[in-house]
Amino acid sequence: MAIAPSHLQIDSSHRRDLAPIATPDRLLLGPGPSNAHPTVLEALSRTPIGHLDPLYVELMGEVQELLRYAWQTDNRLTLPMSGTGSAAMEATLANTVEPGDRVLVAVKGYFGLRLVDMAGRYQADVRVIEKPWGEAFSLDELEAALIEHRPAILAMVHAETSTGICQPMEGVGDLCRKHNCLLLLDTVTSLGGVPLHLDAWKVDLAYSCSQKGLSCPPGLGPFTMGPRAEQKLSARTTKVPNWYLDVSLLNQYWGSDRVYHHTAPVNMNFGMREALRLLAEEGLEQAWARHRRNAEALWSGLEGLGLVMHAPLELRLPTLTTVRIPEGVDGKAFSQHLLNNHGIEVGGGLGVLAGKIWRIGLMGYNSTPENVDRLLNLFETELPRFKQTAAVAA
Amino acid sequence: MAIAPSHLQIDSSHRRDLAPIATPDRLLLGPGPSNAHPTVLEALSRTPIGHLDPLYVELMGEVQELLRYAWQTDNRLTLPMSGTGSAAMEATLANTVEPGDRVLVAVKGYFGLRLVDMAGRYQADVRVIEKPWGEAFSLDELEAALIEHRPAILAMVHAETSTGICQPMEGVGDLCRKHNCLLLLDTVTSLGGVPLHLDAWKVDLAYSCSQKGLSCPPGLGPFTMGPRAEQKLSARTTKVPNWYLDVSLLNQYWGSDRVYHHTAPVNMNFGMREALRLLAEEGLEQAWARHRRNAEALWSGLEGLGLVMHAPLELRLPTLTTVRIPEGVDGKAFSQHLLNNHGIEVGGGLGVLAGKIWRIGLMGYNSTPENVDRLLNLFETELPRFKQTAAVAA
Repeated sequence: MAIAPSHLQIDSSHRRDLAPIATPDRLLLGPGPSNAHPTVLEALSRTPIGHLDPLYVELMGEVQELLRYAWQTDNRLTLPMSGTGSAAMEATLANTVEPGDRVLVAVKGYFGLRLVDMAGRYQADVRVIEKPWGEAFSLDELEAALIEHRPAILAMVHAETSTGICQPMEGVGDLCRKHNCLLLLDTVTSLGGVPLHLDAWKVDLAYSCSQKGLSCPPGLGPFTMGPRAEQKLSARTTKVPNWYLDVSLLNQYWGSDRVYHHTAPVNMNFGMREALRLLAEEGLEQAWARHRRNAEALWSGLEGLGLVMHAPLELRLPTLTTVRIPEGVDGKAFSQHLLNNHGIEVGGGLGVLAGKIWRIGLMGYNSTPENVDRLLNLFETELPRFKQTAAVAA
Repeated sequence: MAIAPSHLQIDSSHRRDLAPIATPDRLLLGPGPSNAHPTVLEALSRTPIGHLDPLYVELMGEVQELLRYAWQTDNRLTLPMSGTGSAAMEATLANTVEPGDRVLVAVKGYFGLRLVDMAGRYQADVRVIEKPWGEAFSLDELEAALIEHRPAILAMVHAETSTGICQPMEGVGDLCRKHNCLLLLDTVTSLGGVPLHLDAWKVDLAYSCSQKGLSCPPGLGPFTMGPRAEQKLSARTTKVPNWYLDVSLLNQYWGSDRVYHHTAPVNMNFGMREALRLLAEEGLEQAWARHRRNAEALWSGLEGLGLVMHAPLELRLPTLTTVRIPEGVDGKAFSQHLLNNHGIEVGGGLGVLAGKIWRIGLMGYNSTPENVDRLLNLFETELPRFKQTAAVAA
């Protein structure tokens, strides 16, 4: 029998006899993933339905509409990519960049560097302007760079998860239109938690993630593309050099044709639908205000304990707070202590900020006064021990 | 305040006031997605943990080991891509194909054509050999093509979901070594349900999905790469032209370095871990035998009702059965009836087989005698009505 060759023995060297999964209930106050809403987690565990089932098709439309609301955009091509936020990030570039296109990336942290790497893989002529990791770009700086480089796309990060900085966006879109380029914006750490007005800001391409401000587990990557970017996609002379993320194909599935592309991650989309439903139920203004209120309580509490914020107040993200690790403290030892003894995750620094800051996320479902109090209490009662230990060790 | 511009109003035109999700419990007996095991669904709804949490790192190792067992391979680079099976498919090509590399695709159905499309996007010099949709390739045909085209990679589908055909694999790997090319195999509809011996078959690259034979919802794409393919990856002179699927980067996260790449879809991996644990608990031989046994019951039942199988017995997949729609029957009307009135999904034909066959999946958790009986009963009692209706209409 060709399909059951009897002479081949089963090799059991990689077989494992494991106990059922028993992961603990962590409070995830790092840069992500953040905790998901219990209603979303329940939705994930529903029986899957077919990806062409009329009921699923209806759910797809709901997800698209609610993403438009969350992003404040009318973009037709708004859908969750079937991968994490990084896949959606790549989708914005893969669909629009043709070899030799000039892409200007405004880098002010780790995720700006990722945009540089990705754009290069699509053979863009990548130009970079940089700011220290803890600052934002001014309109003058951006305009000078647009004049110098004359890019087809300006790519930048709204909420830099590596620095806690929020890039002011008013006027940037107007500059891009004036200098005839597309505006591509990373909204991974802002969607659902920080004021975002894609259409009013004249953003042409944006992406985000399913966790953080949306309170769904990681796994989907919201993506949106406005008419000017769509025009660039339509004018391509070659296929999008990425099949999985090709929006022209995806649109045949997410659009009215419903042409099969790939088998949708239906359960993740169940979760996404519930996450967006809950956001719409709360209301955007209310969600933004809640994030702001709880972040302010965190900031004043930490400052009250003598800690120093890394981001200046006027550029500080409400979703992700960067706090400087005090002199003489082993920041990693403290965060490991929080994880192992209190079940709370906070993040460390990335890149040039490694070992210098903690990153504390208050995102989506996690942005509550209770979580702020719980964390501030631990900083107050436990951090001093780590100062002393470090001093003794030094 | 730069990050909360007060003059911008919220546009609520896309806001929706939705009821909580209420999808029905379907029995998914189509080509996929298939039902997930209840234990897997429970795992999906666990509280997420961090993607660099030591407990998650441990879980990653378990998933990798159990994938090696399921695939019968020792490949170091064995991991689930953070996308569906199609993403893993693309990963096999994206990592190994350099512009101008010759890729020979043996096409005998829809998913072979997808390999052709994808390989072209990575600028391969794509060559194609074809068989009718319902046949498989002989060793002689494959060797003749290898001699004629001298490809760097031979890509083919083990279990063609579009035709129900299982490609016999014995000897194919030896041919590829003899003619100095890599063997790339689609195992989307075989992993966990059909005998698979990647290392014994000398397969260099393979991919699959998380649903079907593994009984996890769709969303992850198992990927594996053997030493010969790894060598081709290491010898690349340019970066992999796909950041998200770049195995050289992913290996720094899944390997011992644990360098952050993207935020892992942790909940999907909770499910995957449980799905693989259950497969190891049952045992591969037992799972393969169960799929075979239930499929044989389905086949003889359908034939007993006078229906004709599309695939010849010796090439017939136990996971996915293709049945010819009888003359005068509206196949789509019958499958819509099954879905709407009995909550059972069966699939239709793709491409040249559209309107000609039904596709019935008995995969993973769904491969049970009870499901076979339930479906056969409906074919017996309900299909005749559709024959009459069609005859009257004609």
